Amino acid sequence: LGFLITDFLKHKRDGHFHSSNDLKSFVDGFLRGEIPDYQVSAWLMAVYFRGLSPQELVDWTEVMWKSGRSVRREPGQGFWIDKHSTGGVGDKTSLILVPLVSALADRLLGERRVRIPMISGRGLGMTGGTLDKLDSVPKFQSQLKLEEAYQLLQSQGFFMAGQSDDLAPADRRIYSLRDVTATVESIPLVVSSILSKKLAESIDGLVMDVKVGRGASFKRLDEARALADELLRVGRKMGLKMTALLTAMDEPLGYCTGHAIEMEECAEFLAGPHRHPGLLAVVKRLALEMMQLASRGKLEDALLEAEIDRELQGTEAQRRFVQMLESQQGDWKHFVSRDRTSHLVVECPSPRDGVVATIDAGAIAILLRDLGGGRKTKEQGLDLEVGVRLKKIPGESVSKGECVAELVVQKGADAAYLQRRFFESLSWSAEPVSQAKWILDVMRS
Amino acid sequence: LGFLITDFLKHKRDGHFHSSNDLKSFVDGFLRGEIPDYQVSAWLMAVYFRGLSPQELVDWTEVMWKSGRSVRREPGQGFWIDKHSTGGVGDKTSLILVPLVSALADRLLGERRVRIPMISGRGLGMTGGTLDKLDSVPKFQSQLKLEEAYQLLQSQGFFMAGQSDDLAPADRRIYSLRDVTATVESIPLVVSSILSKKLAESIDGLVMDVKVGRGASFKRLDEARALADELLRVGRKMGLKMTALLTAMDEPLGYCTGHAIEMEECAEFLAGPHRHPGLLAVVKRLALEMMQLASRGKLEDALLEAEIDRELQGTEAQRRFVQMLESQQGDWKHFVSRDRTSHLVVECPSPRDGVVATIDAGAIAILLRDLGGGRKTKEQGLDLEVGVRLKKIPGESVSKGECVAELVVQKGADAAYLQRRFFESLSWSAEPVSQAKWILDVMRS
Repeated sequence: LGFLITDFLKHKRDGHFHSSNDLKSFVDGFLRGEIPDYQVSAWLMAVYFRGLSPQELVDWTEVMWKSGRSVRREPGQGFWIDKHSTGGVGDKTSLILVPLVSALADRLLGERRVRIPMISGRGLGMTGGTLDKLDSVPKFQSQLKLEEAYQLLQSQGFFMAGQSDDLAPADRRIYSLRDVTATVESIPLVVSSILSKKLAESIDGLVMDVKVGRGASFKRLDEARALADELLRVGRKMGLKMTALLTAMDEPLGYCTGHAIEMEECAEFLAGPHRHPGLLAVVKRLALEMMQLASRGKLEDALLEAEIDRELQGTEAQRRFVQMLESQQGDWKHFVSRDRTSHLVVECPSPRDGVVATIDAGAIAILLRDLGGGRKTKEQGLDLEVGVRLKKIPGESVSKGECVAELVVQKGADAAYLQRRFFESLSWSAEPVSQAKWILDVMRS
Repeated sequence: LGFLITDFLKHKRDGHFHSSNDLKSFVDGFLRGEIPDYQVSAWLMAVYFRGLSPQELVDWTEVMWKSGRSVRREPGQGFWIDKHSTGGVGDKTSLILVPLVSALADRLLGERRVRIPMISGRGLGMTGGTLDKLDSVPKFQSQLKLEEAYQLLQSQGFFMAGQSDDLAPADRRIYSLRDVTATVESIPLVVSSILSKKLAESIDGLVMDVKVGRGASFKRLDEARALADELLRVGRKMGLKMTALLTAMDEPLGYCTGHAIEMEECAEFLAGPHRHPGLLAVVKRLALEMMQLASRGKLEDALLEAEIDRELQGTEAQRRFVQMLESQQGDWKHFVSRDRTSHLVVECPSPRDGVVATIDAGAIAILLRDLGGGRKTKEQGLDLEVGVRLKKIPGESVSKGECVAELVVQKGADAAYLQRRFFESLSWSAEPVSQAKWILDVMRS
């Protein structure tokens, strides 16, 4: 008779399983302000240690999802698909995939038969956030109301937005708590957080990019694989068509790590032909898997690969990239010609001849944060101009004095110190180095 | 360089050990309001799972103790001793021990060679609080300032008070959080909470009464023994002379469970000769162990046992009981003659002939709470008059229709329902039942 929060906490603490009703009472009490943060954080830590059973995790994901509204969905609106990454350094794939896949799908499967409602987050900890990158474009509106987002899906087939207040509000509040209570790295909490938001997009299909390595939350392949397994299991249980990639996050994903400079890299990438090989590999594979789900397996991989290459040689994806920004009030022209004189570019000349062996993505993330481009606390503002632009990447040879990277820094920054910091993230090899493997596994249904 | 709270939480979560400095920074940050409750509660839950190392527990106890002031101590003030119980149902031993031991010690060891600075708590959860019982005496002042407490120790050799604001404030705030975050039943957290308060009393010796059974936090003997072991280890490390008793808490400790009626039982107990056998056994053993510590082992157990019996036959302890109340403004005369017409006494006639086998202390505690005499939340007011007065206890024979207990209830209470509730706490035997064993173990240094 009734829900007692201390009994609920004891229940999880002692390794028992919650009923769906109790999970709902817990979230309802929290959102109504009847259950304070300190009880929720104690529960999160108990979950960190005790986990959630398969059924509990499904129930918990559903309760978080249904704590808010979902994007409106009507019959005959095609296949809705999204891609989500667990977070990487220099990871700008979403910004490339939305225009690329929408162009490709419209061409191969028919106008707006595939729609991409993409809701992204801000950076926190090591990893950058797609939303912060978009914010570097003047006037871009990332805070769409659900109704505006729905209209964009109708008119152009895609949007890129931040999590609105009415979308999985329980997850938003719990995510903030997790970040400050050392309860981020818990597989059931990660799974429920991702999927509750994605389910609120009313999608049919989801491709997960699970990052593993020095620049990711999960450093070990077995942990990342366990996370992917759970994402697939729960996602399918909730009716999603899903594929998960395990991809390497030991090096930054692309030449640029920052915000504005990553937007620039996206435009350069779509224009081609000079593309970072790792970014290209990941983008192509994600695009392939999104198309596979969207076509319900009707198209051969080989055909899709050829069509992705063809799309990358054309200009439609470039056009849609600018359309994506401008349809949400972003001023791309102003961005391209913006005044950069507020910042300095510091070149990092190589101290030696050699081959670049590794560039530690975790160290680059920390360097970016220290340049002013990362958050230490949730509230912190970001400098969207600063960043690291690699001129050489692992596997490439360098001569002494040749520029290995450019750092975009604030005026008055200590250039010599920052150069040293950059070179500390890098290791050298006397021998040739084979290029890193980026796609570690593909887990299809 | 500096203390990062999220790193501190991860450290414990991952099973590492905190330095004394980090524990101090944590408590200081909490007390200054820089570390919010939700981070402290996440740490408490991590400690529940990971524990504290022997050295961490000593450091943590010291940090909690030194978060506040201590009772002033000067040379030549004799041996200071206290007794502390982990909490039982109907447990009124402190109220009897203070006058009894102070009378005995003055007689055997010399005036005020032994002093008893006793700081007690309020009831919470299952167990009653000494302070709530004292509050039933009109005008009794339990909130002594440290200076007032010190004056009473000088003038009469004892006091009974509640925890003042400046005494182990970190423990007081953390205890409140533990109670609402399911982190009470953690041995290191129990040990540090008890000893930090006791150390602030500036005592030399401490006798612990560790309760085990249906009416106690720890239901199993091995858990209670592990707690006693840790209390002894940490206490000695901090320089305390200590003894721990393990005592049974399956039945209420005494005839009365309530507040005012327990004060009445104390006075009746000291007057004698009709004394509850369990209460008598526990009081005598606690008194013996307190005297053993205070006399530094100079007196034989047999002699002390005889002297305790003699003291219980005399009137000095009774006189000091009233003195204890009146020296802190309590109006005992008014209490004795108080108007009881606001409440009803409901008799519970036996439904059968038989022998009382058990009376479940946990069930009696819940019945008391439902009568209005227990707290469900920290802020709840108590009805100090209500209670359960046993007329028959386990081992005694009853005839059908004979009164087994009286319930003191609020007017308008459902008498038939409450009688039924009372009998649900009781089990019968057709055979004679041997009296319960109360002292389960004595762990001396």
